[in-house]
Amino acid sequence: MRPIGIGIVGGGYMGKAHAVAMSAVGAVFETNLRPRLVKVCATSPESAERYRAAFGFEGATDDWRDLVADPAVEAVIIASPQSTHRAIAEAAFARGLPVFCEKPLGASLADSKAMVAAAEAAGAVNMTGFNYVRTPATQEARRLIAEGAIGDVTWFRGEHTEDFLADPDAPANWRTRDRASGAMGDLAPHMINCALALMGPIAALSAVIETVHDTRPGPDGPEQVANDDHAQMMVRFAGGAMGHLYFSRTATGRKMGYAYEVHGTKGSIRFDQEDQNSLHVYLREGPEAGRGFTRILTGPAHPDYAAFCQGAGHGTGYLDQIIIEARDFLRAIETGKNMFPTFRDGMEVNRVVDTAWASSASRSWVSIEG
Amino acid sequence: MRPIGIGIVGGGYMGKAHAVAMSAVGAVFETNLRPRLVKVCATSPESAERYRAAFGFEGATDDWRDLVADPAVEAVIIASPQSTHRAIAEAAFARGLPVFCEKPLGASLADSKAMVAAAEAAGAVNMTGFNYVRTPATQEARRLIAEGAIGDVTWFRGEHTEDFLADPDAPANWRTRDRASGAMGDLAPHMINCALALMGPIAALSAVIETVHDTRPGPDGPEQVANDDHAQMMVRFAGGAMGHLYFSRTATGRKMGYAYEVHGTKGSIRFDQEDQNSLHVYLREGPEAGRGFTRILTGPAHPDYAAFCQGAGHGTGYLDQIIIEARDFLRAIETGKNMFPTFRDGMEVNRVVDTAWASSASRSWVSIEG
Amino acid sequence: MRPIGIGIVGGGYMGKAHAVAMSAVGAVFETNLRPRLVKVCATSPESAERYRAAFGFEGATDDWRDLVADPAVEAVIIASPQSTHRAIAEAAFARGLPVFCEKPLGASLADSKAMVAAAEAAGAVNMTGFNYVRTPATQEARRLIAEGAIGDVTWFRGEHTEDFLADPDAPANWRTRDRASGAMGDLAPHMINCALALMGPIAALSAVIETVHDTRPGPDGPEQVANDDHAQMMVRFAGGAMGHLYFSRTATGRKMGYAYEVHGTKGSIRFDQEDQNSLHVYLREGPEAGRGFTRILTGPAHPDYAAFCQGAGHGTGYLDQIIIEARDFLRAIETGKNMFPTFRDGMEVNRVVDTAWASSASRSWVSIEG
Amino acid sequence: MRPIGIGIVGGGYMGKAHAVAMSAVGAVFETNLRPRLVKVCATSPESAERYRAAFGFEGATDDWRDLVADPAVEAVIIASPQSTHRAIAEAAFARGLPVFCEKPLGASLADSKAMVAAAEAAGAVNMTGFNYVRTPATQEARRLIAEGAIGDVTWFRGEHTEDFLADPDAPANWRTRDRASGAMGDLAPHMINCALALMGPIAALSAVIETVHDTRPGPDGPEQVANDDHAQMMVRFAGGAMGHLYFSRTATGRKMGYAYEVHGTKGSIRFDQEDQNSLHVYLREGPEAGRGFTRILTGPAHPDYAAFCQGAGHGTGYLDQIIIEARDFLRAIETGKNMFPTFRDGMEVNRVVDTAWASSASRSWVSIEG
Ligand SMILES: NC(=O)C1=CN([C@@H]2O[C@H](COP(=O)(O)OP(=O)(O)OC[C@H]3O[C@@H](n4cnc5c(N)ncnc54)[C@H](O)[C@@H]3O)[C@@H](O)[C@H]2O)C=CC1
Ligand SMILES: NC(=O)C1=CN([C@@H]2O[C@H](COP(=O)(O)OP(=O)(O)OC[C@H]3O[C@@H](n4cnc5c(N)ncnc54)[C@H](O)[C@@H]3O)[C@@H](O)[C@H]2O)C=CC1
Ligand SMILES: NC(=O)C1=CN([C@@H]2O[C@H](COP(=O)(O)OP(=O)(O)OC[C@H]3O[C@@H](n4cnc5c(N)ncnc54)[C@H](O)[C@@H]3O)[C@@H](O)[C@H]2O)C=CC1
Ligand SMILES: NC(=O)C1=CN([C@@H]2O[C@H](COP(=O)(O)OP(=O)(O)OC[C@H]3O[C@@H](n4cnc5c(N)ncnc54)[C@H](O)[C@@H]3O)[C@@H](O)[C@H]2O)C=CC1
Repeated sequence: MRPIGIGIVGGGYMGKAHAVAMSAVGAVFETNLRPRLVKVCATSPESAERYRAAFGFEGATDDWRDLVADPAVEAVIIASPQSTHRAIAEAAFARGLPVFCEKPLGASLADSKAMVAAAEAAGAVNMTGFNYVRTPATQEARRLIAEGAIGDVTWFRGEHTEDFLADPDAPANWRTRDRASGAMGDLAPHMINCALALMGPIAALSAVIETVHDTRPGPDGPEQVANDDHAQMMVRFAGGAMGHLYFSRTATGRKMGYAYEVHGTKGSIRFDQEDQNSLHVYLREGPEAGRGFTRILTGPAHPDYAAFCQGAGHGTGYLDQIIIEARDFLRAIETGKNMFPTFRDGMEVNRVVDTAWASSASRSWVSIEG
Repeated sequence: MRPIGIGIVGGGYMGKAHAVAMSAVGAVFETNLRPRLVKVCATSPESAERYRAAFGFEGATDDWRDLVADPAVEAVIIASPQSTHRAIAEAAFARGLPVFCEKPLGASLADSKAMVAAAEAAGAVNMTGFNYVRTPATQEARRLIAEGAIGDVTWFRGEHTEDFLADPDAPANWRTRDRASGAMGDLAPHMINCALALMGPIAALSAVIETVHDTRPGPDGPEQVANDDHAQMMVRFAGGAMGHLYFSRTATGRKMGYAYEVHGTKGSIRFDQEDQNSLHVYLREGPEAGRGFTRILTGPAHPDYAAFCQGAGHGTGYLDQIIIEARDFLRAIETGKNMFPTFRDGMEVNRVVDTAWASSASRSWVSIEG
Repeated sequence: MRPIGIGIVGGGYMGKAHAVAMSAVGAVFETNLRPRLVKVCATSPESAERYRAAFGFEGATDDWRDLVADPAVEAVIIASPQSTHRAIAEAAFARGLPVFCEKPLGASLADSKAMVAAAEAAGAVNMTGFNYVRTPATQEARRLIAEGAIGDVTWFRGEHTEDFLADPDAPANWRTRDRASGAMGDLAPHMINCALALMGPIAALSAVIETVHDTRPGPDGPEQVANDDHAQMMVRFAGGAMGHLYFSRTATGRKMGYAYEVHGTKGSIRFDQEDQNSLHVYLREGPEAGRGFTRILTGPAHPDYAAFCQGAGHGTGYLDQIIIEARDFLRAIETGKNMFPTFRDGMEVNRVVDTAWASSASRSWVSIEG
Repeated sequence: MRPIGIGIVGGGYMGKAHAVAMSAVGAVFETNLRPRLVKVCATSPESAERYRAAFGFEGATDDWRDLVADPAVEAVIIASPQSTHRAIAEAAFARGLPVFCEKPLGASLADSKAMVAAAEAAGAVNMTGFNYVRTPATQEARRLIAEGAIGDVTWFRGEHTEDFLADPDAPANWRTRDRASGAMGDLAPHMINCALALMGPIAALSAVIETVHDTRPGPDGPEQVANDDHAQMMVRFAGGAMGHLYFSRTATGRKMGYAYEVHGTKGSIRFDQEDQNSLHVYLREGPEAGRGFTRILTGPAHPDYAAFCQGAGHGTGYLDQIIIEARDFLRAIETGKNMFPTFRDGMEVNRVVDTAWASSASRSWVSIEG
């Protein structure tokens, strides 16, 4: 075991999550690399200092350049807004540091391409923060599909639906003010990544992206909403299967509707993050009278569960995904071998998002050029 | 109370269902018109006679013209294959008889148009057999949406998914041999009707219809499958909401996936026919800590339930939908007022199906001309 | 096929259900005996006549002796209050008629014993109306247990819970006025019958029976409640397994909580009538990672389902149980062979109820003498 | 913020959980006291050193006296077997240290009484490790009941069921060798604590405790099982309500069946740890047509959730309960005010367990003397 200095840019929602995960991951997974919380960066010296104290970092700064340049920082976690991802990542790669970057990778496909190029040029470890593919249940789903347990997949339906803007009278805020924070920009990437992880590349799609509530109460009367509330797309996977994706922040009643169902010739799988410790699997085998969807409670028999608890059904939660992610990032650093999802995988998500915008604008099917 | 002579064309799956329903409806709903099972028609004298005896008809015939012409027959139920619907209906209307016709109304949009014209010319009562909109749960959902309980609807997702052809090695049979028996022809109409009932007309759509397994084992080796296994479409409702529909007979694990979810600005509704006695409703009201989807068990407080059982949660089943349908048909005859879904409503479903084929062929959005 | 004349005593909740079932059963199951609704009996000539017309009987009477004596009546269904069961049954058996009697068999164990004696002396077909054991799901559960699919059963938990008197301010009515209408008298028999059907005899029990709300608003101020609101008992089955039963009419939120779970050495079963078309089965076999409760939707592969619908998951409902019951009663008449549950089976339920009262009074374990 | 030195006795299942929780709690809850992992104790120097390195302690020992005496240790967590709890706690209290002790508190009621006496004599902070009452859902349930949201409670049913010894051929091991490791000794305490937390004291009970499989394969042939496989008890709460508790390690299919349902005059609550992020609440209010159990996904609106994640439905897991527990222990230390469940609360659980054994032996109702 040896310590590794961690710098985190951002101390908000995800900055905190990564700070907690880096504090816990060593004991949970008995990792060889043991994180040391070296420095946290935020937009002001005051907030940075507050995060430092709260999360237990050694130092704080309001300039990410300072963090990236700190010799004690041996790995960088980017948990600041999308617009900042590229510059920070490029600087870190320039020093040859491993970089973990929150989703979506770049604020645009161009940014993501540049980030991939920088990572690959530096030969540095890189990972994108799609934590939801790391629940034991979704890892198991991925494994089952890859192993052919449900045969050839014929249909994939995925959604990421929440309801934080379901109320038309909810006031305008940062979430309604730029394209990157809309349903396609902010919610879609997780489920697109999941679709790619489970199904492989998307070959073509036909999308509709729209704003349901055009204006929202602003400080000075109705304010124009700058981004999309929900979006859907029909997709064709390169492997041949057909699919559908839906993203919404106006899905009244949905709190964490990261959900998918997959039909295969031999079986089917259903998952819903709102019950993240269950995977529902149907196998077309055995007598008809005994068939049905089996609700499998995740447990030590499933990927990455046992480290959290020795008993099945005792359950993992949101933070545990981030801890698994932290373990994978440390493992990649230790071995020098990138793990899914890399920056390249993150870039592929941007590509799908970009293509969806093009399709929605032209109201037509658009192919995705690889 | 007075008796009414019923003639049923077809003694198969649905012919039987209607015969049972007509036997039970009087006692269940204490209807004024009391069905008398006058005549059943099937393809051979033998099978017709078998159905007569089995279901308790007074007479049998292998010629539907004979049935339609029988003076004792005062109302006709068409439960024979789609290709026969039009001619039988036209003959019955020529005699001025009320006609109930199984879904889909006509084998083509042209047939359906002709049937509507005949019905309206005759001024005769007419109804299309979309029984699933008649469960107490779906009637309640329709009522809630119409009353604005969930506010303005922003999203509708519907599916009709089964798995009777999920196995690629299932042999070719009548279901794989003509376009009308594919997913779009056979399964889609029920859910399209449901979408129209809950949401109003569809203005435009973009569809993909496809055959998953191109050949199936036939009597002399692999046989070409003549129709579609599954289909999806993005839709725009005339009222403004966006939606998605999916139909499949290869949805492994799905037995009766007639299911929908509807998001409104004030609430949401979810339903799945596989648990037909529950409606899941979320209302965006009251303290956040108490919100969630409420699983409402249907009971006497819901439409058409009390006649079946005095206790909530005791449940209705498949046949009970047909009994409700029978009550509505008798009521329409008695009052002379058509009830939803009429032939015209059935024709609108054909129109959506037709448009979907056009869209799938052109890989583009297609408007539905009203 | 030949007609059989049916007389029904009672035209209320269950009288109607049996009238409907007798109208439908022939067509549903293609029975050899075809019910003819000969006569219905109620407490006044007016109500009897109303039921006659409503349900389609040929005749009506306000004197059950008249019904029982009618030569056209070839089988008697008793759907009047418990206090009347014995006298009617004895009179019918005196004529050698087959008798179906609603649950609970007799108003007391003594009555039930007399009824069994009369039935056996007459050598007449007899059946008790425990319809819930006849759902396809519970029939399947019974079959699975009997076949050893879940190994040796170690634990059975059953309940029959409803909430029609959950509100302490619900006024006193007939349901609160005699012992026979309390939770033990009215609700318990169904689930006790189920426990006996699935598990075999109960050897001993320890019960608590109590009234939760001692008084309820009456016409002249608070009225004493004469019977029990809920009751529980720990049981020891003769086969060795341990169990627990609970009955309640104050189970707020429960509409039809006829539910059980059974643990065996090789598997487990769960059922809840509020989702009567599902059976949840766990088998301790195959790799741990794939184990869980399978939600099996009832279908043609399960007992008595196919007659109602050709597709799995399309569902049966409350009335369908009564139709299955009717088929079994007709089959017993036709073959002369009694089918479960006979009067003797009904009497065994009374015995358990009686023993529970004794146990509750003495606050001790009491053995059941066979 | 100031550091506090933590010593943990035991590095197994729970020792690890507490080590992780103490590493994460500061960042999650921004506690004033910041745990420093000073020393871990295990049965051998080698294992202690292994735990030290794995979990990040500063020191290790194989003698708990050494740990308790270490001046850097300012608080002690006991996560070793039950038989060791008393001596360690007494020694720690002798130094005036705060003590957190894993459940069950003492190996016997006598031990627990002595531990309470020692804690109270020392005036030291003390807490028992019933973590499951700390999920956001169960905290919310407790709050709802306490606030009267479901009215007067009339019925409580609780269970703790697992299936790790469901297989009769599972070999004998430490779990089958002493009374403290049976269903009553090991599983029951959590749910008894829950019942007491939600419902208040138990006044009397009637229990059955039994061994289902008397022998199990041992190293030299069949070995006698020394403890109980499952147990049930009917209870009377001091507040008047009736209840039932069931505990089993042979509950085939149950992985974490910590579950309860509570009926009140105004509403009901259901919870199952296998879906720990949901609470099902029924309120007897509003129109009947809209009533049902609402599945409330835990979120920031519920106790102790927001620190883990800003979005509802994202879910907490097993370890998060331990982190909440750690926060409470630190808070108690900081404020000097004990928090539920104290050692006294732990002792009350032992009292119920003891009474259950007495009841099972005498096959009779036994009162619990306060
Ligand atoms: N994986 C997941 O489940 C989630 C991922 N995210 C992603 O995480 C990233 C951060 O989002 P949140 O934590 O929700 O945002 P937040 O607003 O809660 O926190 C952002 C943090 O970045 C810091 N920051 C802003 N600009 C900066 C700059 N120029 N230099 C240095 N620090 C700066 C702020 O001080 C703040 O501490 C985004 O990429 C977002 O898409 C967000 C939520 C969930
Ligand atoms: N509403 C629903 O849930 C369902 C509706 N259907 C619809 O019901 C109709 C009938 O389908 P099924 O009952 O499944 O078919 P089926 O094959 O079970 O029965 C068809 C019946 O029509 C009779 N028939 C065929 N050709 C005839 C002719 N030329 N003249 C007179 N009788 C003829 C046959 O003898 C047979 O009795 C179709 O329109 C189908 O789409 C079918 C299944 C379910
Ligand atoms: N199997 C099941 O699911 C259920 C069974 N039951 C049982 O069915 C039986 C009847 O109950 P309900 O139908 O609910 O009662 P109800 O009050 O709805 O109907 C009782 C009927 O019996 C008639 N009746 C009363 N006294 C009579 C007499 N002396 N002679 C002739 N007719 C008389 C009444 O006129 C009325 O038509 C009871 O044994 C009850 O326990 C009731 C409800 C459900
Ligand atoms: N709250 C919960 O969910 C759970 C609580 N427990 C409780 O936690 C306690 C420990 O159980 P587990 O962690 O499962 O046991 P374990 O067997 O996994 O670990 C026991 C640890 O105690 C140490 N130990 C044993 N004897 C010792 C001694 N004389 N001196 C110092 N250390 C000693 C061992 O070296 C080992 O590290 C028990 O009281 C148990 O009932 C256990 C599992 C779950």
